[in-house]
Amino acid sequence: MYRLYWSPGAASLAVHWMLLELGVPFEPERADIDSGLNRSADYLRLNPTGQVPTLVVDGAPVTETAALLMLLAERHPEGGLAPAAGSGERAEWLAWMVYLANSLMPAFRFWFYSGDAPGLSPASLQPVVERCWDRIDDRLAGRDFIVGEGLSTVDLLATMLMRWSRNMPRPATEWPNIARYLRRMRSLPALRLVHAREGLTDWIND
Amino acid sequence: MYRLYWSPGAASLAVHWMLLELGVPFEPERADIDSGLNRSADYLRLNPTGQVPTLVVDGAPVTETAALLMLLAERHPEGGLAPAAGSGERAEWLAWMVYLANSLMPAFRFWFYSGDAPGLSPASLQPVVERCWDRIDDRLAGRDFIVGEGLSTVDLLATMLMRWSRNMPRPATEWPNIARYLRRMRSLPALRLVHAREGLTDWIND
Repeated sequence: MYRLYWSPGAASLAVHWMLLELGVPFEPERADIDSGLNRSADYLRLNPTGQVPTLVVDGAPVTETAALLMLLAERHPEGGLAPAAGSGERAEWLAWMVYLANSLMPAFRFWFYSGDAPGLSPASLQPVVERCWDRIDDRLAGRDFIVGEGLSTVDLLATMLMRWSRNMPRPATEWPNIARYLRRMRSLPALRLVHAREGLTDWIND
Repeated sequence: MYRLYWSPGAASLAVHWMLLELGVPFEPERADIDSGLNRSADYLRLNPTGQVPTLVVDGAPVTETAALLMLLAERHPEGGLAPAAGSGERAEWLAWMVYLANSLMPAFRFWFYSGDAPGLSPASLQPVVERCWDRIDDRLAGRDFIVGEGLSTVDLLATMLMRWSRNMPRPATEWPNIARYLRRMRSLPALRLVHAREGLTDWIND
């Protein structure tokens, strides 16, 4: 049994989506950023950074969204959300997971919390984010999924990050291959379900 | 057989170190950033971003340092550089790999290439980097390695990142647990060997 600490539309969404996609039992616990639940003494004991998500796995708190997706893929290989170790697509899958985690994730973190680094501003990060959409759009030319022939954790993470761009000057949907990709992603039942569970009504029906 | 494209002291150092640590055969190829070899037509065909490292694995180029360390750990389990899938330390190992890849790696990338994001400056990134040393120093209290009881890819990545701070206003060695940790790391034969192979004489003997 897993326990997921989540906040609507935060990085927890990818993990929440994956748990629903896998159909494994889990206990959702709210740690809403907007109402400060993620700064409660109880939550900070579990995760001193106050970031979400935290997933309690076998009684121990685990953090870092991309790590959680990789861990769940490994624990539930029957879900088929990652190429098996030793397979030809494994290296690509690892490289894309790390790329998303170390390019878009930190750019958005600085975007949303620019006070973390004096001098940083949304304007300084916009070209960083847009270069990532260029690269992902190139990758999606003629492809339905970012890695291999089916849905993987890379798509879960990328789709969540694309959603985060919805209020930026140029949201990811302005890139044509990404727009096509998102039309299909948005029809996936588990992505629609996680939006409903988190009370999110924007973007999913755009 | 692997082929590693590397540049002295760049992110390739962690992968270069790991190949030496594992004792697996590989062909080193220079792609020096300072002399622009990483912008040669041949290299850009292999890796259009011009970043190093690229590791050619079974004939295909693979990028992203943290991904390469995870891939090599998986392909060479006898090296013991990652907890096995399913083991109790696996989640911690994944979380630390992702944390280093999405906190220090991008902060240093912006530090070295601040032109990538207008408005960014070393001064804006210094507190970001220093918060990471705080966290890693806390983790190292009473520990010899970041995860588990032995050397892992997390130590390879972290040590390289600590080296990168050597010319910052407060290098990582100003944190006491990190300083103690690095004294032991710097005595490791494979880390000394990779410095010799890359022609690096500073820091390793500090």
